[in-house]
Amino acid sequence: MASPAHCTAVPVSEIRWSPAEKSAARKAFELALDRELEATIRQVKHTAAKIEEPSGLWELERWLTERRTGIERKYDYRYSVLPLVFATLLREGRLTDDDLRGLGQDKLEAIRRAARW
Amino acid sequence: MASPAHCTAVPVSEIRWSPAEKSAARKAFELALDRELEATIRQVKHTAAKIEEPSGLWELERWLTERRTGIERKYDYRYSVLPLVFATLLREGRLTDDDLRGLGQDKLEAIRRAARW
Repeated sequence: MASPAHCTAVPVSEIRWSPAEKSAARKAFELALDRELEATIRQVKHTAAKIEEPSGLWELERWLTERRTGIERKYDYRYSVLPLVFATLLREGRLTDDDLRGLGQDKLEAIRRAARW
Repeated sequence: MASPAHCTAVPVSEIRWSPAEKSAARKAFELALDRELEATIRQVKHTAAKIEEPSGLWELERWLTERRTGIERKYDYRYSVLPLVFATLLREGRLTDDDLRGLGQDKLEAIRRAARW
């Protein structure tokens, strides 16, 4: 019996990354992380400037904790999950297709598949 | 054998607080807490405005956690520890002697004793 079409792609864990692709991936990863951290810095300045009540202090504390744990969880550089990480970053607008130049078609296809999950 | 002079005072746990003294104590307690929270709001605005690096985000998070737990620990309204709480607040400059008007001599003496610890 022939495999269904959606099962013919190489599993993500078996994708091989060339040195040039690893370099491009690392660059895109760091670019998105920098953008997200810069956005977080802008947001914390904006939020803190508007605090008027003590409850605002502890809301800011909780928000920072959520930001820190969320960022730690999202930015996972293992190659076995990197297509999913890039799919998330594309969906969130932290990366554009252009930022992923340098990745081969198999990686771009794996990212597109992950984006459909 | 006569008790040493420093043992003649009524133990803090046995001090009786009149309704008027309880009201004065609550007022001073809330005043100090409001001042400390307002100072924390001013400080968080000042600190956040100066953040330039991502590390500053997580330092601010840690500082807010320390402030929250420190404030929760310090502002303990049990009458058995209130003289010690007021002694701390006087030492930190969050209360003045004038803010404690309305407390009887036995309470003021207990606060002075606590301040010497």
